[in-house]
Amino acid sequence: MTPEPFAATPEPPYFAVVFSSTRTPGDAGYGEMADRMVQLAALQPGFLGVESARGEDGFGITVSYWASEADIADWREQLEHRQAQQLGVEKWYERFELRVARVERAYGFSRG
Amino acid sequence: MTPEPFAATPEPPYFAVVFSSTRTPGDAGYGEMADRMVQLAALQPGFLGVESARGEDGFGITVSYWASEADIADWREQLEHRQAQQLGVEKWYERFELRVARVERAYGFSRG
Repeated sequence: MTPEPFAATPEPPYFAVVFSSTRTPGDAGYGEMADRMVQLAALQPGFLGVESARGEDGFGITVSYWASEADIADWREQLEHRQAQQLGVEKWYERFELRVARVERAYGFSRG
Repeated sequence: MTPEPFAATPEPPYFAVVFSSTRTPGDAGYGEMADRMVQLAALQPGFLGVESARGEDGFGITVSYWASEADIADWREQLEHRQAQQLGVEKWYERFELRVARVERAYGFSRG
């Protein structure tokens, strides 16, 4: 999908939404909607980036980064996102856990 | 590895270490060490759980949960963990980003 899997976040503090999930069997429109949600989130005020991984066991983690908790609340209420959340509960997710966290500090490493 | 991919965390507040990474090619002892680090972390005071996913593109996210920032600092300094960190920089990781965050709120969904 995205050529860069890492989010280019600013210096902390900022906020993270950690979304851990297992999917129901089959796609059922999920992949298309997931792509669409990333596109839409990127248009939201305060969006800083997103990182996502899902293993062969079906367990996935998506972390989106935001400038403020108010930006997260606005994204949660975005109309098309609300429709996606509804479909998530109706058919796409077997289980999920969502955690909102304040990033206090960060560092990185890159080879070469 | 673990039969339960979700961490059984308590009510917030607690802390999360979000570790995003891309691996160098080949295993080079990485899998064994990663398993060992999960076992060791689970013995540390304040450890609340860990969740991990890595996709076919090689990008992975591991989130470990802790009762306090002091517990995270103690784990960072644990001897065998420090040796693993050194090997990570020397050979296992192409790039990583580590973020320490305070989980403010959380909710979940489970089908059926």
